[in-house]
This record gives sequence, C-alpha cells and structure tokens, in this order.
Amino acid sequence: MYEKISTDIEHLRKLFVFPESQDKFLEFGKQILDMMYKSFKQKGGLHSSITLDELTSLFSDISIPRDPQLLRDIFPEIENKIASHSVKVYSPYYIGHMTSAIPYFTILIDMIISSLNQNQVKIETAKASTFVERELLCWIHRLIYQKSAKFYRETVQNHRVALGNVTSDGTLANLTAMMVARNLLFAPDGRFPGIARAGIAEAYRHYNCERTVILISKRGHYSFDKIADTCGIGDSNVIKIPVDTGSNKIDLNILRKELNEIEAYNQNHEQKIKILSLIGIAGTTETGNIDNLYEMNRLARKYNTRFHVDAAWGGPVLFVDDYSHLFKGIEDADSVTFDSHKLLYLPLSMGMVLFNNQKDLQSLQHTTQYVVRPDSRDQGRFTIEGSRPFAALRPWVALKVIGSEGFKLLFEKAFTISSYFKTQIDIHPNFESLNDPELFIFNYRFIPVKIKKHLESLISENSAETLKMASRINSSLNEVNIQLHRDIRNNDLSFVSRTVLESTRYAPDEIVVLRAVTINPLTTTSIIKEIIAEHNKLGLKLFNKSYKKRFKNYF
Amino acid sequence: MYEKISTDIEHLRKLFVFPESQDKFLEFGKQILDMMYKSFKQKGGLHSSITLDELTSLFSDISIPRDPQLLRDIFPEIENKIASHSVKVYSPYYIGHMTSAIPYFTILIDMIISSLNQNQVKIETAKASTFVERELLCWIHRLIYQKSAKFYRETVQNHRVALGNVTSDGTLANLTAMMVARNLLFAPDGRFPGIARAGIAEAYRHYNCERTVILISKRGHYSFDKIADTCGIGDSNVIKIPVDTGSNKIDLNILRKELNEIEAYNQNHEQKIKILSLIGIAGTTETGNIDNLYEMNRLARKYNTRFHVDAAWGGPVLFVDDYSHLFKGIEDADSVTFDSHKLLYLPLSMGMVLFNNQKDLQSLQHTTQYVVRPDSRDQGRFTIEGSRPFAALRPWVALKVIGSEGFKLLFEKAFTISSYFKTQIDIHPNFESLNDPELFIFNYRFIPVKIKKHLESLISENSAETLKMASRINSSLNEVNIQLHRDIRNNDLSFVSRTVLESTRYAPDEIVVLRAVTINPLTTTSIIKEIIAEHNKLGLKLFNKSYKKRFKNYF
Repeated sequence: MYEKISTDIEHLRKLFVFPESQDKFLEFGKQILDMMYKSFKQKGGLHSSITLDELTSLFSDISIPRDPQLLRDIFPEIENKIASHSVKVYSPYYIGHMTSAIPYFTILIDMIISSLNQNQVKIETAKASTFVERELLCWIHRLIYQKSAKFYRETVQNHRVALGNVTSDGTLANLTAMMVARNLLFAPDGRFPGIARAGIAEAYRHYNCERTVILISKRGHYSFDKIADTCGIGDSNVIKIPVDTGSNKIDLNILRKELNEIEAYNQNHEQKIKILSLIGIAGTTETGNIDNLYEMNRLARKYNTRFHVDAAWGGPVLFVDDYSHLFKGIEDADSVTFDSHKLLYLPLSMGMVLFNNQKDLQSLQHTTQYVVRPDSRDQGRFTIEGSRPFAALRPWVALKVIGSEGFKLLFEKAFTISSYFKTQIDIHPNFESLNDPELFIFNYRFIPVKIKKHLESLISENSAETLKMASRINSSLNEVNIQLHRDIRNNDLSFVSRTVLESTRYAPDEIVVLRAVTINPLTTTSIIKEIIAEHNKLGLKLFNKSYKKRFKNYF
Repeated sequence: MYEKISTDIEHLRKLFVFPESQDKFLEFGKQILDMMYKSFKQKGGLHSSITLDELTSLFSDISIPRDPQLLRDIFPEIENKIASHSVKVYSPYYIGHMTSAIPYFTILIDMIISSLNQNQVKIETAKASTFVERELLCWIHRLIYQKSAKFYRETVQNHRVALGNVTSDGTLANLTAMMVARNLLFAPDGRFPGIARAGIAEAYRHYNCERTVILISKRGHYSFDKIADTCGIGDSNVIKIPVDTGSNKIDLNILRKELNEIEAYNQNHEQKIKILSLIGIAGTTETGNIDNLYEMNRLARKYNTRFHVDAAWGGPVLFVDDYSHLFKGIEDADSVTFDSHKLLYLPLSMGMVLFNNQKDLQSLQHTTQYVVRPDSRDQGRFTIEGSRPFAALRPWVALKVIGSEGFKLLFEKAFTISSYFKTQIDIHPNFESLNDPELFIFNYRFIPVKIKKHLESLISENSAETLKMASRINSSLNEVNIQLHRDIRNNDLSFVSRTVLESTRYAPDEIVVLRAVTINPLTTTSIIKEIIAEHNKLGLKLFNKSYKKRFKNYF
C-alpha cells in the first residue's frame, strides 16, 4: 500500500530539520491547500453521506503503525478518509452550532503557533508569548470592565497580579471562576488553612456549612453541572431558576424568592447553605438571550455573594455600542467567561476568564521548584491546566486584522440575518417562531397552518379541556419536529440543531424546537429563504405521509 | 503606521472565503516559512537578549485595535516583536524542558486541523474526526494494556464504552482519572445519589469518611496538588512518599508503612480515611525515573484501592521492548496518563487518559438536550472539557509518519545522548551527576574538583561534625549552582533547567541541580561536549570570582 522506507535515524532526523530548501515544504503546503479547497468546494452534503457504520470500518485499525511512511502517502488518506467526511462547519448552510466559518488567515496563524511551539506555562518556554497573552487579557478585560487607562497601564504586564487566564475552552474558564469563588468563600481562617489545603468536608465543618449552591437560570450551560461535580459541591446543588417565558432571561422574582428562602433557612439553622455564586448568562447556548445582569449583580451584592457572567457566547458583542445596554451590569461582575472560538470566529479552542479583582486568581496559586516559581512571570502559576499552547496569538492577530470596527460589522450582519430569519418564519404559514433572538440564535418549529390555527383557538379558549388538547398537540408536534430534524440531517443540504425548551409561550409544555445559529458572514438572506423552503417541503412531506391521520383526532 | 483600509463588510466577507486563487494564500504561506526559517537560523541566544522590561514596553497596548489592518502589515510585527523574541525550544542546545523540537510536517497537520475546525464535543460537528480520535485512543490503549485483538475490535468504535479521553493536557488527563476514581469511590448507594450529585461533604457523611488521600512519591507532578484542590479533597491530603535515594523511585517500604497506618487507623475509628488512588509515575518530571509499578499495583489490590500511572512523560517509551521491563505493572493500572506534546514530539498541547475498564468513564457522564445526548456518539459525554479541537489528528498522523519503529530509534538515540552526558559528567573533574537517568532526564551540578574531593572525605569520615560541614558545603554549592544557572541563562548559548532534589546521595540535604532533558534528535554528543565545556567555563569563572574565599572556610 505504501512505499516502504527504511527506518533509519537519518531519515527521522531530517523530519526535525527546518527545510533549508522550502520547495518541498511549500509543495506540501500547496497540496494541503488544494485538498482543503477541493473538500470545501465538494458538492454534496454538509456531513457527507457516509454512514456511521462505514466510518466504523474505515477507522478500525487496532494497532499502531509499525514502519515509517512518507507524508505524501498519508495525504490521500487524510483527504479521502478524513477531510471528505468532515462536517462542513464553514458552509453558509451550516447554521446549527456555534462552530462556524473561520477567516482563512487564522490557518496561517496556527502554523506560526505550531512552529514556535511555546509552552505558556512558564516564561522559560514562552518569552514574548507570555507578554502577548497578558496584553490580550488586558484588552478583553478593558472591553468588559472599562476601568481607567491608569489601571491598565499598571496591570497589563505586572506579573504580581493577573487580570485573567487563557484557558482551553469556556468550560475550563467557568471552572476557573468557580474554583476562585470556592477558594475565596472558604478562605484560610485562623487555624483553618483554607479549602484548597483542607478540602471541602473540613471547610464545611469549619464554616458550619451544610451545602454550597450555585444559582443559574434553566438556560445555563451544562458545564456548570460538570463543574459542580468536578469542584466537589455536587451537581444537585446547581439551583436552576426558571426563565421568563418568551424572553428566556432568568426570572428575577423566582431568583429573589430563592435567595430569601436561603436567607430564612440560614436564620433558623446552625448549618448554613452558602451561595458560591450567582451566574448570569450573556448569550444562552440554546436561545442566545442575555440575563438582566444589572439586577443580578445588585442581588449578588445584597446577598453578599459573587456574581459570575458566562459570556462565552456573547462577550465579543460588547464591541457594538447599540447592544451594550443588553450587557449592563457586566462591568460589576466578579468574573466573566469569554470564548475566542465562538464569536471571535477563531478555530477551536480557547477560552478566557477575566476577574474584576486582579488579586482573585492568587487563590488558585500552586507552584513548584522546577516550574512556575512563586514570584516568577510564569503564567502557569494560576491556571488549572498545565502545558498550554500559544493560542492567544490567534485572537491577538484577529483583533488587529478585523479590528473592533470589523467585528461590529460582522455582528450587525449576523443580527440582520437572524432578524430576517424570524420575520420570514413569522409570516410563514407552516412555521412558528419560539424565541426572541438577541444574539443570533433563533428557535422555531414546523407546524402546518391548520394545526397552528387550531392550537391558537384551543389556547385562547383556555379551558382545562382545550389546554389538555393543546398539550397533546404539542406533544405530537414534538415528534414531528424530531423526525423533521432527522430528515433535514438526511437531506443534508442545510443544518440546524434541535433542542427542547420549557420556556415558550406554551410553558410548562416542553417544546421541541429547531435552532439556528446565524453568524456565518457568508450566510445571506437568500440562503435563509432557501433553507426555510427546504424545511417546509420536508416538513409537509413528512406530515402528510406519517402524521396527518393522527392529527385528525385532535380536531 | 498601517495602511488605512476601509471597514466594509465586503472586505470582511472576503476573509471568510477560501481563496479561489491560491496565489495570495501561498504567498503568505511562503512569507511565514521565510519568517520562521530566518528566526530559526537567527544567530544569538536561545531566549533573545531582550529584557523583560523591554518586552513590557513592546506589549503594553491597553486597547483593542479599532480599525481593520492588512495581514501583510501585521506579519512584520509578528516577526519582529514575537517570533524573534520567542524561546528557541527547537534548538539542539535547548535541553532544559520537555518542550522540544517538533517534526516540521506537524505544522502542516495543524493547518489541516485548523481549516477543518471540527469540534470534538459532538458528532454533529465532528464526523470522521470522532472516529479518528477513537482509533487513536484504541492504539494507545493497546500499547499500554495489551488486551486481546478481539477486545479492541469490539471496543474501538463502540460508542457505548470509552477506552479513554483526549484531553487538553496531562493535568486534565490526571484530573479526569482522579475524578473517575472519586466518583467510583463514592458511588450511588441506596438512597445516596452519588458524589457527582450530592457533593463531597454529603458523600463523606454517607460513607463515614473523614478524609480522602492520594498517595504519590515526592517526585510526583505538582498537578496532583492542583487536582486535589480542584476536585475538593484538599491538597494537604496528597501524601508524598519519599523516594529511594539515587533511584528516585517511590520507597515501597514507606508506602507499605503508610498504607498499614491508614488501615490501623480505620480499624480504630468510626470515621475512615479513604484512599482515592495510589499514583505511580512513569517518568518523573524532575529525574525521568519510573516507579516500581508492579509492586505498587499489588499494593493497590491488597489495600483495595485504585492505581493510576502518570506516564505523561514516559508513555511512548513503551514502544521500545528493551525498556518494557521498566514499565512492568502498567498493564494492570486502572488508568494511565499519556501526553502527545512530550515524547511523541508534537506541538502543544494534547493529553490522553486511558482506562483499563471501558465503563469507568461513565461515572463522569453529563449530558444535555442540545449537545452530547446520552446514547449518542458524542465524545463530549465523558470529558471535563467542552469544546475541543481535532488535536488527535496530530498523533494519528505522526504515528504513521514515524511509526513505532521510528519512535523506537528516536528513543534509543535519546538514551545514547543521556548516557553519554552522564558519562562525560562522571569523568569530569568539576561536575557531579546526581541521578541515574532512565528516561532522558539527567541531573548534575557544578562542583570544583577540590571541593568534590573534600566533600567526599568529609562524608566518608561520617562523624557528626564532618557531616555538618558537608551540609554547609552543599548549602553553599546550592548558591553557586543557582548563580551558575543564571549565568547560563545570561550567556544564552545553551539552556538547562534547575530544580532541587532531596533524594540524592546527600539526603536529607536539599541539593540544587541542573537538569537536562536530552530528547532533541538533533542534539549530538559533540553538542553535549560543547555544553559541558561552556558550563564548566562559566562555573569556574563564577567560583573564582565570587565563592573561592567563602569555600576556604570549609577546609
């Protein structure tokens, strides 16, 4: 199959020598570009038509290859087995997830990151790159917290403080924020050495704590469940507050009630419930909505707890002045999560977590003799991760190439597209929109016009019986939309995702919705039109074939 | 400074269009290669002579750039401010850290990873790449656990089980292993819903547990302290067992004693001490030594606890049959950490954690509606991280291009170099070797011949008085070697790291050592000779100038 080459050390050493003649390197580079270009232009589906069983048989070698092979013999394998069966997340018809197109210069930047191969954990392995990382963190910190220029001049490269961390993704950024909250809540106190040293059980004993809770809306990212598990407080202590129906923002009245109940409980009990943090969301994963951060922050102050904002999705939209009112209050949050592989349009993956107080991260400090010494400039002093790539170069360059003004335009475009999408769905007989998109995420479902009208009238009649019938209809519509989503996947000309919302106008009914994330700058209004037409056609076909009869019973 | 370009959406859209004419792209690619090549060939130091203060002033912009700029205007900035002040980790004279040279084809692979931009969290964003990741995990699992071919054929692409996780680095791999250990130790039991749900405090109450400990040698990686903090057991519960002096392997007698003491304690107390895991190390960070995994595994079974092996460093050396006796017992470990950015010579960063029992990872399962559904093929079901890049492509390709036979040769070469280094130090009048390198990490120190002989005689005399004097000498030699390390850094022609060992023949004296990691395939014996000569010259100069007088007092 492959050309047999001799396994000798000289052949191997050559792999490590930067090619003096660049011809070969450029030839390979060109080959990769050709390959990517071909795969990008490839007709056919977004996911390739290969079945999971066929993929299984393509990737079922169970042993490590023994003999060296030439790179040029492996390229076709990458091209035919991998690239052509990858998901075309860059397609303007792929509007199902937050992973979208990237600007192509970032591919070149990744080549630089890779060849420099700096390890951010320690200045001995990351000289200029340590400074780049801090400069980037300063930029994002300022975007969020807008402190004085003096503050930033004094902190940007002051290694005794940290404005934040670069993390491998948003989950790690959120975890870092929760770890800081936890370690500050159960800080060293007298003879108690602090939770970092002593662990949770002893911390609870010392502080008379029965349990520690996180308060977040039902739209909160599932990573907070993982984080509550990871950091040891248990995911049953993530209290999920319902959202206002329609707006998908945390219901402040229920949040207040919950906080009052905790306070009342604590007044009557020796063993307290402690609040680790309120979590505000700036761009929920399912619906793209932003909590009322201003009020949440006030509540956090009132109840003397921390306030963290998960802006993994929405953070970059702070560039747009017209949107800034939506984020009001974020500048008072104790910490904020911000991803670079979502709305900064960069390749996977890199998150950031920023702290209002530049000393907070010291609560995570771990140091050692051979790496990350205490008074060093080593960025690894405060991170949960150890070895880390120079991923910060990506946003650092992208912010220069696109500029805050450029991002503003991209977001205005995305906003136009999602508004257009909603308008088209609103006027369409066979669809219904199910959220009010703030940040480019739109939920809708297929519902044939006759059913829509019937459901409408059942609901406005508002009797126990008609509402029960409405629920039955919704439940069947859920089946229709799950199957429609499968049909869209199989048709493979466009891609949206699906989820379940309890927060629509039909609450408490759980409604299956299709979810469109419309951020690709190449997605146009005419593409949206095409996509709606395709989904309508598939929906009608499905309905007429498999559901018409059942729905007759509901009339 | 930069060419002013208009901020219009068409300009931005073009950044997202894969260039139809590849000329521009290739031109940029060539420019980057030129830049990297120039910087690689640049004369001068490994770290560049720029001071940290100068770097501070280079990277003290405190605001995000406003207007878009052309990539070609930013390249010079990357070249002059970043690339030329990066650490030349690829230099054969850079033998101080585990971050080393990479084979240059991996730069091309990173370009592919970046352009495909698959998100491994979910099959909807990662089709073939999900299968590649699982195939890779199977290869590494088999390398370690050597189960039957039948087992691997049945598990490689069986989405109901997981042979392991790809993680962002070794720390996250170790964290994943400890999380699994924790969640299995405090599993659901009757009405107790398990630690993942209920948290540590309630788990301890249910299981009558006072504290949970991790047992690891003093050579253990500092990440275990972070992990004990993160997962809530507290880092004071990481029990650090001394190592055998010289060998740097965990002292099994002390480990047995500790285990017996825990058992005795538990017999006499209602509230128990639980053991989360014994940790064996296959390649300690400071000295490259491998614990007696076979005996540690027997102890883990005897005391009914788990056994995890941190093979982040040494794992790939399993390719070499001649070395496999050193790893004996690893095939019985419950979990193993294995990094790809260390001895697979790949760019930063990617770790893996492999589990002996393919169902263990289910203890971490978190799922959600819109992503990672329970019975899906989504790799994100079991990971601590959320969004993840297709980093698995790097080792998947590298294992094909280099092959297990190729890696074998690379390690044999590395072994030759570290043996040569030790031999040269052993016969050198002014140096002393301080560990027995198993996996390419060698510790030594500068000690002028007269001092060496004097210290030798003091120690062989072995009286309270002479030993006290020996300690004083060692303490001064520590100062000399710390200063010598600074001088080596300033001279900047070669780079070794330094650390402190309590486990040398001078135990319990803490000895400052220089640490050489000799894995770069381009590092030759003559380069080692040069490096020793340089360090000797710097050492003598330093000693004669600043320490001669003080040492006279010790005679």
